[in-house]
Amino acid sequence: MPSQVRIVEVGPRDGLQNEKSIIATADKIALIDRLSATGLRSIEATSFVSPKWVPQLADAAEVYAGIARQPGVSYPVLVPNEQGYERARAVGVSEIAVFTAASEAFNRKNINAGIDESLARFAPVMARAQADGVKVRGYVSTVLGCPYQGEVPLADVVRVARALHGMGCYEVSLGDTIGVGTPGKARAMLKAVAAEVPMPALAVHFHDTYGQALSNILACLEEGVAVVDAAVSGTGGCPYAKGASGNVASEDVVYMLHGLGVGTGVDLDRLAETGRWLAALLGRETGSKAGKALLSR
Amino acid sequence: MPSQVRIVEVGPRDGLQNEKSIIATADKIALIDRLSATGLRSIEATSFVSPKWVPQLADAAEVYAGIARQPGVSYPVLVPNEQGYERARAVGVSEIAVFTAASEAFNRKNINAGIDESLARFAPVMARAQADGVKVRGYVSTVLGCPYQGEVPLADVVRVARALHGMGCYEVSLGDTIGVGTPGKARAMLKAVAAEVPMPALAVHFHDTYGQALSNILACLEEGVAVVDAAVSGTGGCPYAKGASGNVASEDVVYMLHGLGVGTGVDLDRLAETGRWLAALLGRETGSKAGKALLSR
Repeated sequence: MPSQVRIVEVGPRDGLQNEKSIIATADKIALIDRLSATGLRSIEATSFVSPKWVPQLADAAEVYAGIARQPGVSYPVLVPNEQGYERARAVGVSEIAVFTAASEAFNRKNINAGIDESLARFAPVMARAQADGVKVRGYVSTVLGCPYQGEVPLADVVRVARALHGMGCYEVSLGDTIGVGTPGKARAMLKAVAAEVPMPALAVHFHDTYGQALSNILACLEEGVAVVDAAVSGTGGCPYAKGASGNVASEDVVYMLHGLGVGTGVDLDRLAETGRWLAALLGRETGSKAGKALLSR
Repeated sequence: MPSQVRIVEVGPRDGLQNEKSIIATADKIALIDRLSATGLRSIEATSFVSPKWVPQLADAAEVYAGIARQPGVSYPVLVPNEQGYERARAVGVSEIAVFTAASEAFNRKNINAGIDESLARFAPVMARAQADGVKVRGYVSTVLGCPYQGEVPLADVVRVARALHGMGCYEVSLGDTIGVGTPGKARAMLKAVAAEVPMPALAVHFHDTYGQALSNILACLEEGVAVVDAAVSGTGGCPYAKGASGNVASEDVVYMLHGLGVGTGVDLDRLAETGRWLAALLGRETGSKAGKALLSR
């Protein structure tokens, strides 16, 4: 078990892009600034994917430009291709995240390309980022299951993670996109990847579709991972399971970590307050049980 | 990790007694019969605590008498004292559960007696049960925290668990009543108790107030516990945290266990159906994420 864990807060991006309600640009900016005030040091701010695909984040440039950037805090943004990269760079982005799936079927369905072709498509973005001194985080999705092909071979997960790391991603986040994983499988997956990519370069990213996210995180912490993606208020959802839960709630992760004696640098009460504020904006109950319990004390 | 886990379904008792809605006696009976049809082998049916304290279960005798009891399924009922024992026996109850807290303050507040006096009060019930061939399960509450005294010394948890086992309880269920525990503390608590009471005689009982229940269960499974309390649809709540979540949802526990390759004998789809049916009766969304995801596929 690591003594310190870095939380990568993905609410403003992975959370909001899967919420039905679209919140105002000023509120997105306020959300990010509230999050940096909690002590979080990595906050995924938005996505420069085409607004045609993700209308919720069509204001990516305005959001990024509006953040009161704090020293020591990184604000990666999702970038799918060179056009996205250019839009991001135009507003001064200094860290990006690229993404692909470990599932052959998922890649074909989503970007009409197999795993290898999808990786090849990153090459120009990676090259430009390297030339510009822009840090790149990599996401591997569908690491524990795919809505189209079901089982995803561990070898494919390892191959994609190794490729992203090899292409220059300083960190590779392993995502259970549809939240079907359970702790034994999560642990085995992480172990397999860590045999090829150094553990300090790995992060885990769990969705709580089946209520398993925190248990999966626990299993991965026991395996040595020290970076965990989470979204305040458990925002998001799952396009493959109607009405399902979203990302694991940052408040619940931080509560667990602090209880385990693992430091995060995050002020949990402030985080819970932010979760409540965001839930109110979205017109729904907070998706964080720890948040709800803390605020009802 | 055990290869088989027995789920003790506590929804009809611990779940319903903490729900605001009171459901009809016939529906309680139907719930229990639906649960036994899922393959569950231990279903806590109701409580013979005074209706003055638990109006939700005032129909305990009618409920118990109405169950279509299945061979191989046990239907324990909660019994606080000799009067309760007599009411239970009058309708043919063959297994009871007794309860006390590991917290001195909790006992004093709830039954106006310290730990030792509370244990002494069971003696006549235990004696009668033994004479009548009635099995007794014991609950220890507040094992990881108390709403009145905060921290609960591990030594008190061990002492109470050992006493219940010594008095003749075939199984002692360790309950985090207010759901504040995290996996490291849960594991340490179980380990301490298991040094004095054999692991096969122990069960764990977690509430999901802070979203930690499943992680705590995982840690305890890794420690060797093979009996887990849970409530279908995650019914219940927490009188000490307004609006908080209730018991860990049986569906989520079973989903995790099956994913871990641990057998339960439970048909998860039928269980999820029962959870949805119960949630509809209670006029709320199911509290089980696995249940919701399974039914939305």
